[in-house]
Amino acid sequence: MVATEQPLRQSFPEKSSVVDVQGNTVETLKVEKSSAVESPLSSGNGSHNPEAFRQALNKVLYGRSFYIPSFKIHDGVSGLFDYGPPGFNVKSNILKLWREHFVREEKMLEIECTCVTPEVVLKASGHVDKFTDVMVKDVTTGSYYRADHLLKDYCNEKLEKDVTISAEKAAELKDLLVVLENLSIEDLGKKIKEYGITAPDTKNPLSDPYPFNLMFKTSIGPSGQHTGYMRPETAQGIFCNFNELYRYNGKKLPFAAVQVGQAFRNEISPRQGPLRVREFTLAEIEHFVHPENKSHPKFSRVAQLEFLMFPREEQVSGQSAKKLCLGEAVAKGTVNNETLGYFIGRVYLFLTRLGIDKDRLRFRQHLANEMAHYAVDCWDAEIETSYGWIECVGIADRAAYDLRAHSEKSGVALVAEEKYAQPKEVEKLVITPVTKELGPAFKGNQKNVAEALEAMNEEEAVKMKATLEYKGELEFYVCTLEKNVTIKKNMVSISKEKKKVYQGSFTPSVIEPSFGIGRIVYCLCEHCFSTRPSKAGDEQLNVFRFPPLAAPYMCMVFPLVKKKNQQFEEATKVISEELTSCRIDHKIDIKVSIGKRYVKSDELGVPFAITVDSETSVTIRERDSKEQVRVSLKEAASVLTSMAEEKMTWQDVWASFPHHSSHSCAAAADE
Amino acid sequence: MVATEQPLRQSFPEKSSVVDVQGNTVETLKVEKSSAVESPLSSGNGSHNPEAFRQALNKVLYGRSFYIPSFKIHDGVSGLFDYGPPGFNVKSNILKLWREHFVREEKMLEIECTCVTPEVVLKASGHVDKFTDVMVKDVTTGSYYRADHLLKDYCNEKLEKDVTISAEKAAELKDLLVVLENLSIEDLGKKIKEYGITAPDTKNPLSDPYPFNLMFKTSIGPSGQHTGYMRPETAQGIFCNFNELYRYNGKKLPFAAVQVGQAFRNEISPRQGPLRVREFTLAEIEHFVHPENKSHPKFSRVAQLEFLMFPREEQVSGQSAKKLCLGEAVAKGTVNNETLGYFIGRVYLFLTRLGIDKDRLRFRQHLANEMAHYAVDCWDAEIETSYGWIECVGIADRAAYDLRAHSEKSGVALVAEEKYAQPKEVEKLVITPVTKELGPAFKGNQKNVAEALEAMNEEEAVKMKATLEYKGELEFYVCTLEKNVTIKKNMVSISKEKKKVYQGSFTPSVIEPSFGIGRIVYCLCEHCFSTRPSKAGDEQLNVFRFPPLAAPYMCMVFPLVKKKNQQFEEATKVISEELTSCRIDHKIDIKVSIGKRYVKSDELGVPFAITVDSETSVTIRERDSKEQVRVSLKEAASVLTSMAEEKMTWQDVWASFPHHSSHSCAAAADE
Repeated sequence: MVATEQPLRQSFPEKSSVVDVQGNTVETLKVEKSSAVESPLSSGNGSHNPEAFRQALNKVLYGRSFYIPSFKIHDGVSGLFDYGPPGFNVKSNILKLWREHFVREEKMLEIECTCVTPEVVLKASGHVDKFTDVMVKDVTTGSYYRADHLLKDYCNEKLEKDVTISAEKAAELKDLLVVLENLSIEDLGKKIKEYGITAPDTKNPLSDPYPFNLMFKTSIGPSGQHTGYMRPETAQGIFCNFNELYRYNGKKLPFAAVQVGQAFRNEISPRQGPLRVREFTLAEIEHFVHPENKSHPKFSRVAQLEFLMFPREEQVSGQSAKKLCLGEAVAKGTVNNETLGYFIGRVYLFLTRLGIDKDRLRFRQHLANEMAHYAVDCWDAEIETSYGWIECVGIADRAAYDLRAHSEKSGVALVAEEKYAQPKEVEKLVITPVTKELGPAFKGNQKNVAEALEAMNEEEAVKMKATLEYKGELEFYVCTLEKNVTIKKNMVSISKEKKKVYQGSFTPSVIEPSFGIGRIVYCLCEHCFSTRPSKAGDEQLNVFRFPPLAAPYMCMVFPLVKKKNQQFEEATKVISEELTSCRIDHKIDIKVSIGKRYVKSDELGVPFAITVDSETSVTIRERDSKEQVRVSLKEAASVLTSMAEEKMTWQDVWASFPHHSSHSCAAAADE
Repeated sequence: MVATEQPLRQSFPEKSSVVDVQGNTVETLKVEKSSAVESPLSSGNGSHNPEAFRQALNKVLYGRSFYIPSFKIHDGVSGLFDYGPPGFNVKSNILKLWREHFVREEKMLEIECTCVTPEVVLKASGHVDKFTDVMVKDVTTGSYYRADHLLKDYCNEKLEKDVTISAEKAAELKDLLVVLENLSIEDLGKKIKEYGITAPDTKNPLSDPYPFNLMFKTSIGPSGQHTGYMRPETAQGIFCNFNELYRYNGKKLPFAAVQVGQAFRNEISPRQGPLRVREFTLAEIEHFVHPENKSHPKFSRVAQLEFLMFPREEQVSGQSAKKLCLGEAVAKGTVNNETLGYFIGRVYLFLTRLGIDKDRLRFRQHLANEMAHYAVDCWDAEIETSYGWIECVGIADRAAYDLRAHSEKSGVALVAEEKYAQPKEVEKLVITPVTKELGPAFKGNQKNVAEALEAMNEEEAVKMKATLEYKGELEFYVCTLEKNVTIKKNMVSISKEKKKVYQGSFTPSVIEPSFGIGRIVYCLCEHCFSTRPSKAGDEQLNVFRFPPLAAPYMCMVFPLVKKKNQQFEEATKVISEELTSCRIDHKIDIKVSIGKRYVKSDELGVPFAITVDSETSVTIRERDSKEQVRVSLKEAASVLTSMAEEKMTWQDVWASFPHHSSHSCAAAADE
């Protein structure tokens, strides 16, 4: 599950109120967002101002319906966003590549579980008890706030606006900002009191802080007795189905099961637009592996990769992320094991193939205090945006925790079987009731007593053996008789025998790459967004430089209006039907003015634009170079198909077809 | 929205407690399921016993993990099912074809809205008030039952087991079964009392029946003040976004927007396995069209289709469904309009292409009392199964109802614009306050009075005009002054003027094909399931005859184990990587015994099986004919690809490659 998209199974273990050095370090790294955005890396669009950049971006994202605030006409609710048509298409392309890159490539088992989840499941996973944020309440109006947000806003405002505060006080507030996310409920309360923080809207006093469970609660069936929740992640459904999946996979390990679907989190106060929302799509992989063998047969295929990694030690010692070779990182033990390393490498390939800038992507290792006690190692793929570094993928080795938790709660063993290379010698308890002694003593009850003896667990049996040896007899409660009976030493033989065992069972480890798909969509939009001056130089035009595989459409089709009502209808129909039969997604725009064609097309990030300006040929224009070629009507769809299938690049097309100058037609206006 | 998958916007208009002839007819048609199943049509598998058929089917569906009861290890909840790997793949293939057949073909706008929905939206749509089933309660234990189910069970039991009842009584109970779904709450209560029906588990008396809202309720945000629901259908999100989508589409009509996603229904007592569940996938198309022009430019492409239709008149007059030509049905007005007809035809093509048996598919028109008062026409695609005829797709012309409902509640006009071919002459009210009279009379209040006069609506102004003409003056309340003033005849001029108008706005009609994807998955499984005797004739083997485009995998890959540990590893790897790069989904099974290979493969419905029995060539076996050819290792993936892309049929392959006899290898055992 993705780190901040949900407050984390990783954070379930009680947070210490004493925040250690490591904690400080990682928080400092998260806070320093403005410097990141102002680095040359993030200013592909020429902007050094994250606010202005975001304003320009949002104008297009909302103006062209990539996103629509949900139920806008009814004033909606914060933290819910719809994907409009181009946003949906980008998201859908990301999922398509995800399935190809992960599911098909590794023959993972994809399943679909329900969002509605009975309470017992989330009791087992720990979410009912620990999936919480800390709130405070306006004691008069009852309005709610996130305690850490109030404290953060207070510190930031003081630091920015209050010129009277001492250097000492400023340092204190800065330190506090750094440790904020790790403060205990008690410490949050103390600080709020100490600073006299009141409700922002009313200035009323605030209640003591208290935990609020972030799951959407509901009731299953009409009785109101079956509490249910909307799942906070998709992983639990996979864990619950482990036995089915293991059997389906022919009882072979390792294997991975995946699920893509909606997850829900009842945020107290959603922020950061589409990055922190109340409903979002997760794509989670649960790779089950033998705990003693986490090698990966295909690791060599990613071992040569080099990219920005940010191991624990570098964070603690105040260094920054650095390029590391993945193979070396695994060899040196920086990354715990090959399988974890393999997925880190595959995630890197996936994100960069989509169009994420590799220089604004880093893999940050969780610090010891960030990880759950049972986790072996965990790395977040973080993408740099105008909001700072955003966790988009979490890749964790969670050991046997999840399967064991569900086993314990359900009483159903979730284990794999193995044949030992060498038979193992194990001690086994053997309880043998001695019939010839029991018969005369208990007559008709003999069977009940014998069964009760055989049903003892190891601890009870060992105790009985000791007592019988010491005292010769003891009182023993027989459930089925509902009374005590006296057992004598000669009535039962209890011994431990050594046995050779050729096979056994074990709980597999889980390695979990978990993708916040909505976050990846948004980060991709940020990384692909840029502006360039119009030809006349009087305005900045927006361009999404999505790679074709992620773009909302492969091409636009613009029929030029020649005379009134003559729009090359036949030629447009031919092109469109051929593109459709080649499965090339495209959009026909008849109404757009000639001068605005390419402006509109670039704003949607469509890589190619076909202008139909004759009944026999068309022009194809490439978005980034603005180059145009002329292609016959018959060939147009197949040229686009070749590029979509990556059998041809634009350079190949440019080299093969006559060039077309925009001056030669009416379209010059917008270039 | 699909008919019985949700109890229906169509049924919102108050149900009459007097059930008319039409009601009886349709209920009779639904009740007579056993006769349907025993018809030769439904016995493709040779079974004439729906229970036995279902038992055999379920053994495979659950045994091979097509379905898994959700959270099974924790004992789960009824009415929730997970898709295991092969079930997920079938569902995913259905959605893939759906998107190609509808979305890409018609350039529909696909969007994604949230499942969490604020109350105001579902107030506007009518769901908060009317999306209900009728319940009764055990007055002692508080257990709940659906009132109609109890009455149904009572009637069935009496009819089946009580040999003492009179012919008259039997006729009464049979009649009751027929009208059951249309009974009012009061009538349900009366019948339960009359028959002395008690709680089935305890025999305690029952409460009066009362309505239960079927939506899962939750609370958005931490305050508990914002009620929300899990959406009961996806359509409302599309309606709320109409203005955005209309603008995105360049303000052109008609256009269609679609959404695929989860919908939720808190069933009182789920029945019929995966057919009536609490969470399911809907795929809904909302096609917006000018209310006065519902022609469709591509209707001619489906006009020639002939298939089973069941118009209202045939139902009322006791006839059965019959083959009709779609073009004629529209021409005669049986189907209301071309666009509705076009979608009916497209749905027919979609379902039959998937593998639904065309002889067990009918389009049944809603009777007048089944439809909402505003609906123009509605047809359900019903598929015949062992449970009877199941509504899987609803295709309705809902007129302007939905857009108007959201407009009214939100105050935001959801309309399209049009330029008139001929300018229209309209009468417009003109209110002109006469300044030179108002000034002296009201001094400083002159502006308030003038504004109040201008703000009158048509009704108020007409009334004022009449009063002034009749009485010469009247008292008039000015809000901003919070008092009455006296208006005299000469102070205001009120007239109607004729104006030429060149454009206007209107509320589009909505034509809605709504697909219950989960139901289609299940019905497809029923239609494709069959058994055939094993070669030895000693047992029945199961086969899903899914067409390749719907099958969970295109092929299985079985490496034959030659000597110990020699499994043609290299050849298998080559084949598998080539299939992957051609995007052919396949499953490798190493552990299965040679004799069981094809049994396992047929049970999953996989159309082709590749056996790797040498390092240079393989055999390919086709599921239905059981024929095998030998193909070189190099060619195998491309042969499969050609068949997947429908460029080659099995007959072509059979004609092109050397035949392979299963007797020539160890695999004969299972044939």
